[in-house]
Amino acid sequence: MADGPALLTAAVGGERRALARLLTGIENQDPAFRELLPRIFAATRGAHLVGVTGPPGAGKSTLVTALTREYRTRGRRVGIVAVDPSSPYTGGAIMGDRIRMMEHAADREVFMRSMASRGELGGIAATTWLVAAALDAAGYDPVLVETVGAGQAELEVARLAETTVVVEVPEMGDEIQAIKAGLLEVADVVVVNKADRPGAERSARQLRAMLAGAGGRFAAPPPILLTVATTGDGIGALVDAIEADRERARSADRALARARNQLLRAVAERSRRRAEARAEWEATVAEIAEHRLDPITAADRLLGK
Amino acid sequence: MADGPALLTAAVGGERRALARLLTGIENQDPAFRELLPRIFAATRGAHLVGVTGPPGAGKSTLVTALTREYRTRGRRVGIVAVDPSSPYTGGAIMGDRIRMMEHAADREVFMRSMASRGELGGIAATTWLVAAALDAAGYDPVLVETVGAGQAELEVARLAETTVVVEVPEMGDEIQAIKAGLLEVADVVVVNKADRPGAERSARQLRAMLAGAGGRFAAPPPILLTVATTGDGIGALVDAIEADRERARSADRALARARNQLLRAVAERSRRRAEARAEWEATVAEIAEHRLDPITAADRLLGK
Repeated sequence: MADGPALLTAAVGGERRALARLLTGIENQDPAFRELLPRIFAATRGAHLVGVTGPPGAGKSTLVTALTREYRTRGRRVGIVAVDPSSPYTGGAIMGDRIRMMEHAADREVFMRSMASRGELGGIAATTWLVAAALDAAGYDPVLVETVGAGQAELEVARLAETTVVVEVPEMGDEIQAIKAGLLEVADVVVVNKADRPGAERSARQLRAMLAGAGGRFAAPPPILLTVATTGDGIGALVDAIEADRERARSADRALARARNQLLRAVAERSRRRAEARAEWEATVAEIAEHRLDPITAADRLLGK
Repeated sequence: MADGPALLTAAVGGERRALARLLTGIENQDPAFRELLPRIFAATRGAHLVGVTGPPGAGKSTLVTALTREYRTRGRRVGIVAVDPSSPYTGGAIMGDRIRMMEHAADREVFMRSMASRGELGGIAATTWLVAAALDAAGYDPVLVETVGAGQAELEVARLAETTVVVEVPEMGDEIQAIKAGLLEVADVVVVNKADRPGAERSARQLRAMLAGAGGRFAAPPPILLTVATTGDGIGALVDAIEADRERARSADRALARARNQLLRAVAERSRRRAEARAEWEATVAEIAEHRLDPITAADRLLGK
């Protein structure tokens, strides 16, 4: 990232290698990239930022592959950010999913980036959306952001999307049911995938009832679609529904809600970095470890007046 | 919380109603409680803080019930904090789990608190461990913290425990496999629950191999135990393993790692609250929404020099 501006210019001009290096700089939070941020934002072209989330086993990767295929037939250039939980152990399992994307590996109009969620709470959400902004600047539209797992951090990533697609599957246990329900809160479009399984229609009906009972957030409840990602069934209608949400997503209140979330994440991330850089950081940690100080009082002291 | 100090004194003295009100003040982040924090920390008695986490469907609630039963036979007073993903929809599913705890509802030596994870990233981890500290001050030991779900936020909650028990189950799909692997990173004790199912021994062997291959973090790999929470099989040995970890958990480096995490969470939470209280907050959000400013530059401006 010695020459950030030149790299950005090359990436915007369509050089894939420059784009890859730029994304690495963003992901590593390279200090040189810090100054590049306003330029990246100025270079964005208004791509549709689409989040895809859902409980484990819902078939999100396969669905993203199917969506990519459909967008390609419509002549769109597709950016993909896959957020994976990082672990020294996970390489295998996640790579399995990634292999499914090989179908698009030779297609120069598709750019895919896998990102590890490094356990820095809050950090991943901010970084993901900077990577998405860079893909936007490089001319990809839509940019699909897929999260693995369905915890709070993944919800936060999804919440930063313009249009959030929540993928559900028929017939899951009680606890998955709770996760599903939590996910509905961020849904702009709901998909019941693996709809060739028994119970798909019933699942869709249950989801419709849950959404109708919720009130408030849903002036118009999100559409619920049935898909079979492995065969492509229902994918055309799903892309139509996502496209239909694009303008709604750009209404003033949805834009403000997204901006508020982005700013909250960024404040948390930056303040943590600053606190860790303070000379008294280690001594403060030791005071807490020895139970001489509670963490909240300590944080207030570090943050000053 | 008009009279916080009196409430704390009553709670420490064993009044359950006072304790419940104190916990509500903590959970709501009542400003009056803010001043009470150093007193709560000063009143803690060194309870063993035990986190219980694992993928959906692993039977964590049932295991916590079985652990509670075993600790009670050993004459211990047990505090339980159950962190639930909050949602307007989830009441039913989670309440189902809570009903299983009814067994201990009449036992005055068991105190259980359910907490909603309100989607405030970072906030839940800090608050959970303040609630645990209050239970410690009120004389409960151990304090068991159970998280529903297995996302990043739940991992953070688990990481703040002194001893983290990771619950796995035999035979799960690929994506769950990845989540399992991520969880192993925070494990001090690993449990293969539902060990009456086929494949339990094989799962335990696989886990052992994964842990052996990891190196680094695990000077001594965590013990792996088989349990059937519904029948109580293996629960005595599990409590023995948790107890054996108690002293190890209090070594200087584990205490420092915990304190560092607590402080990071608290810094993020407090700085967010401060930023939102700034007069220029709304105008800054609007600038981001209109793409005139990127969130990170905005955060730096709000945080000042």
